[in-house]
Amino acid sequence: MTVRVGVIGVGMIGEDHIRRLTRVLNGARVVAVTDVDADRAAAVAERADGARVHGTGRDLIADGEVDAVLVTSWGPTHAEYVLACLAAGKPVFCEKPLATTQEDCLRIVDAEVALGRRLVQVGFMRRYDAAYRALKAVLTGGTIGTPTMFHSAHRNPSVPSYYTADMAITDTAVHDIDVSRWLLDDEIAATTVLKPRRSTRAEGDLQDPMVLLLETSGGVLVDVEIAVTIGYGYDIRGEVVGETGTAALGDGADIVVRAAGARSDRVPADWRERFIRAYDVELQEWLDAVAAGTCTGPSSWDGYAATTVADAGLEALRTGNRATVSLVDRPDLYDK
Amino acid sequence: MTVRVGVIGVGMIGEDHIRRLTRVLNGARVVAVTDVDADRAAAVAERADGARVHGTGRDLIADGEVDAVLVTSWGPTHAEYVLACLAAGKPVFCEKPLATTQEDCLRIVDAEVALGRRLVQVGFMRRYDAAYRALKAVLTGGTIGTPTMFHSAHRNPSVPSYYTADMAITDTAVHDIDVSRWLLDDEIAATTVLKPRRSTRAEGDLQDPMVLLLETSGGVLVDVEIAVTIGYGYDIRGEVVGETGTAALGDGADIVVRAAGARSDRVPADWRERFIRAYDVELQEWLDAVAAGTCTGPSSWDGYAATTVADAGLEALRTGNRATVSLVDRPDLYDK
Amino acid sequence: MTVRVGVIGVGMIGEDHIRRLTRVLNGARVVAVTDVDADRAAAVAERADGARVHGTGRDLIADGEVDAVLVTSWGPTHAEYVLACLAAGKPVFCEKPLATTQEDCLRIVDAEVALGRRLVQVGFMRRYDAAYRALKAVLTGGTIGTPTMFHSAHRNPSVPSYYTADMAITDTAVHDIDVSRWLLDDEIAATTVLKPRRSTRAEGDLQDPMVLLLETSGGVLVDVEIAVTIGYGYDIRGEVVGETGTAALGDGADIVVRAAGARSDRVPADWRERFIRAYDVELQEWLDAVAAGTCTGPSSWDGYAATTVADAGLEALRTGNRATVSLVDRPDLYDK
Amino acid sequence: MTVRVGVIGVGMIGEDHIRRLTRVLNGARVVAVTDVDADRAAAVAERADGARVHGTGRDLIADGEVDAVLVTSWGPTHAEYVLACLAAGKPVFCEKPLATTQEDCLRIVDAEVALGRRLVQVGFMRRYDAAYRALKAVLTGGTIGTPTMFHSAHRNPSVPSYYTADMAITDTAVHDIDVSRWLLDDEIAATTVLKPRRSTRAEGDLQDPMVLLLETSGGVLVDVEIAVTIGYGYDIRGEVVGETGTAALGDGADIVVRAAGARSDRVPADWRERFIRAYDVELQEWLDAVAAGTCTGPSSWDGYAATTVADAGLEALRTGNRATVSLVDRPDLYDK
Repeated sequence: MTVRVGVIGVGMIGEDHIRRLTRVLNGARVVAVTDVDADRAAAVAERADGARVHGTGRDLIADGEVDAVLVTSWGPTHAEYVLACLAAGKPVFCEKPLATTQEDCLRIVDAEVALGRRLVQVGFMRRYDAAYRALKAVLTGGTIGTPTMFHSAHRNPSVPSYYTADMAITDTAVHDIDVSRWLLDDEIAATTVLKPRRSTRAEGDLQDPMVLLLETSGGVLVDVEIAVTIGYGYDIRGEVVGETGTAALGDGADIVVRAAGARSDRVPADWRERFIRAYDVELQEWLDAVAAGTCTGPSSWDGYAATTVADAGLEALRTGNRATVSLVDRPDLYDK
Repeated sequence: MTVRVGVIGVGMIGEDHIRRLTRVLNGARVVAVTDVDADRAAAVAERADGARVHGTGRDLIADGEVDAVLVTSWGPTHAEYVLACLAAGKPVFCEKPLATTQEDCLRIVDAEVALGRRLVQVGFMRRYDAAYRALKAVLTGGTIGTPTMFHSAHRNPSVPSYYTADMAITDTAVHDIDVSRWLLDDEIAATTVLKPRRSTRAEGDLQDPMVLLLETSGGVLVDVEIAVTIGYGYDIRGEVVGETGTAALGDGADIVVRAAGARSDRVPADWRERFIRAYDVELQEWLDAVAAGTCTGPSSWDGYAATTVADAGLEALRTGNRATVSLVDRPDLYDK
Repeated sequence: MTVRVGVIGVGMIGEDHIRRLTRVLNGARVVAVTDVDADRAAAVAERADGARVHGTGRDLIADGEVDAVLVTSWGPTHAEYVLACLAAGKPVFCEKPLATTQEDCLRIVDAEVALGRRLVQVGFMRRYDAAYRALKAVLTGGTIGTPTMFHSAHRNPSVPSYYTADMAITDTAVHDIDVSRWLLDDEIAATTVLKPRRSTRAEGDLQDPMVLLLETSGGVLVDVEIAVTIGYGYDIRGEVVGETGTAALGDGADIVVRAAGARSDRVPADWRERFIRAYDVELQEWLDAVAAGTCTGPSSWDGYAATTVADAGLEALRTGNRATVSLVDRPDLYDK
Repeated sequence: MTVRVGVIGVGMIGEDHIRRLTRVLNGARVVAVTDVDADRAAAVAERADGARVHGTGRDLIADGEVDAVLVTSWGPTHAEYVLACLAAGKPVFCEKPLATTQEDCLRIVDAEVALGRRLVQVGFMRRYDAAYRALKAVLTGGTIGTPTMFHSAHRNPSVPSYYTADMAITDTAVHDIDVSRWLLDDEIAATTVLKPRRSTRAEGDLQDPMVLLLETSGGVLVDVEIAVTIGYGYDIRGEVVGETGTAALGDGADIVVRAAGARSDRVPADWRERFIRAYDVELQEWLDAVAAGTCTGPSSWDGYAATTVADAGLEALRTGNRATVSLVDRPDLYDK
């Protein structure tokens, strides 16, 4: 079965997903697009083998030939479109964040629970990365015993000028927040932000680097180093410490060069180089699930939890204190 | 454009490629299959969304709805089907070997040259592996200077009972032969086989391990360790030594586990685990080229050269002496 | 010149240093020993080529044939012996801690300052480890820019039954405290203790693992993971994060074994295996300095600072709060 | 007991060993030196705390205060001095080669056998390197099964202008020859030299790189890559392939730096950096054995075997053919 996909928002990430659906992945056809920039929507539609252009996201969702919807519009619009998809009973893949407020996230969770089945997948793509999956398999396998700590580092060579202090948490560390919840199969209960010496490379009011501490309900301590002006490359590190061993993301270099007095290998230049396969796998698994009439992957609940933890992180960043995280009770729909 | 593919031979590898075309890759439809085992062909066709079943490969090639052909039948039949595709002017992807004799390979080369354009791609999938590609990029970039040696190792945990002494060269080392030619951009001029102490794990008349020495026209010395009963895993190693440095395949582990006194990572269990992505990329690039009306990748010439070098390897294995490799002049069609 | 050494305290570490002085290192002779256990002192003296046995440490220090003193007695006695050495004008190597209270440390600092020259070296042996030295050389060289963070991990397979909660800071983390000060060339200004989920392997009231946060005067954030029941081995990790790069202790395996589906190397079993060379280098450099009439290495000031930071760590452990570190002004004698 | 050592030949290596005996190692005193350059001998003697200067090696050996002799003179003189030591019943450490001809080696072996006990140790220092020792321990432990191959690489950044083609075998590869015999506990039965494309960095008649193949009596195939103008560093590699696994020298970096898009660590600049500890351990173990009245380490037989294999290597280099190695029967004195 070929899944007929409608895409809401054809900016950089939207267009990249359209390329993926039309040129890389199996089993999809992009049949409709929409964007606040109508000209851009028209141009993208033409490149995508003549997809239809809709004036609004709601029109696209209502299109009878659209089987499933990809939401890659501006964050503040996500909730509206996801709710509309739920109302229309259509599977929806929503790029992070699920919504920009906890309230909106909860409205989505409630609507989905009322519907009685999962239709929403949120774009936390690290869960589809081969290395993180191997890490989780080790945890599940029991080789290292019960986890006690998770050391995570998220390093970017640089950030654009519009990048603000808060974005280090809501846009950058949110991936570490989600992957911590997923790896440890545990919720985050509290968070604290530590501020090391500020790099002279950080501009404006940007606190860089910073360390986000997360405490899970089960007591696991997660420390997330966020360094977004480190220059040397895009470097994602992670080590779970268990009672009897540890499991860490490997350095995983394809090749090693010996030259000029050194043995060296390449650090990825950016997130595209590091995670491009994870994005492919993520969308392919979504398509396969849609075609099979199921829904897997990060759920509305995961989107709600991530937003709630990030909010606590922002509070901790602002106050300098430990901020607790309050989640509503998890509906049965989201049991594993 | 969707490429309509016909598949000749639906044994294990054929069926795996059909899975790839119908479930993993973009832009293909399997419209026709054939196999010497008609029941099997029928069963596979049904699973492949109702492809047509043809009685013979020739019928399949003649099918007007078949845009391009995948030859995954028994080796001795390859030449006939590839020649038929050339006669029909249809793009063909032929699993290795291109043909089982140098003469048949040359007939294909001649037919393609007579046609005046490339239609044949041979299934040497290592050229599509990310690590080998990165290795070639280093060579091209000049970081390590002109290559002088290439150390290659090809280790299998075990081989099936029908695996014979000759297959170590024609089935196993043939990948190292092709990748050596491609990495070094040079032809093989002579070969010698060295026989280390025979492993007690080798059965029948199998010489295992063995070392295949290849000398290129440019003087690069390639040593290929072939060990097919080594038990511990499927391990592909390679290091090119240049005048001022070396470049080697990395160990590339996804994760590293510390437990029980050791730091360890996984060795792939078999070629599927190691090269599954290379197979995906290989066929996707073939489909993309077919859709674009071009032909890239390993050519008939590469298939001819590999078979000729392997034949010299068999002679060297039999006689214990150095065997020279005689290639005809390379037609301009195969210039880079 | 052969340095005639007197050893106060011939327990396990004392006897190991005597072995080092008499069997491994160059330029020393053990001429006198003493211990609270007179029989043990006599037995050790005999094995050490007939060293003299003194009834007390003070007698040993007063011995005219003793050029330099090694203090390896019980911690609470260190201050008395070090002060006696200063009074006698004799070089002294004192195993950590320099003294068990800040007051005693300061008395030693004051006495040495009054003397006007350094005579005391404290046994922080990590500064003599080749890997830490290489790490410091990178920091000094500027390759990674100004440091902003230092991630340190100190993992022991297990601890003896007498090991208490406080010892995780005063005996274990004290090495990380010293090496942080030395690597970063900065004092510690505050400390906090974080308590992850307690391992089921931790006995009694032991909090294991724990994370000791250190903030330097210059703002560098140091996180020290202390895990003393981790079972799998003795694993010392460290990565300094700078503004433009990072430098980390390598895994540094002598050999890599491929067997049974894994690529693996050995984790040291204990601190002896990991740091034995550092102990050798430490004492050899001390002997060389004594013979040359100079004093290098960790100073009384370093001993005072480490004790003061560890005290703050104990307070932080007890209260759960951040504890500031107050150091007196550093006397010029200890300028670099 | 302090071993009183006489040193014959105080060129670069001799003086370095004197530094080792007088400044680094335990239990030795240099009491006598001699050299063809009397002025140099006098200068070195003075620096070595006033050692006596002898006019000839024979006088030094006859000196009643010399307990043991270190022969670090010009290779062609080794045999004479070693034989004189045997005649005088004094332990002797002889730098490689034991002698420059098989005949002279055999004369030493015969003399030592006649004496009935070992007095001679030959300077093959790789046997004292921690990594090679760990490698041998794995082989002995059986983890990888019976060895079938050993891949060795010996890379130098550059060689002095007097370095000739033959020296690649007699001075460079001789270390790989010895360590192969020792690791595999097997004799070399035949050798062949392969000549890859000559590096443009090789001057004069130097064949660089080259590959020396060694076949042991037990059938193990050893390939030794010798590359002495490779520029990037001094790189010693080795992997033993067994029936069920492999064991390889690790890369063993002390630290790893992430900067400028790469993860890198240092390759040693030269043999001093790589093997300095092995030289220390080698001489310390010799001193300990001398003091204990025993003799361990590489024997006269090992010196004879290495010279005989190197001679076969030279023949193979000259003729281009496989050269067999003929050893006399090994006297019982040299049984393990």
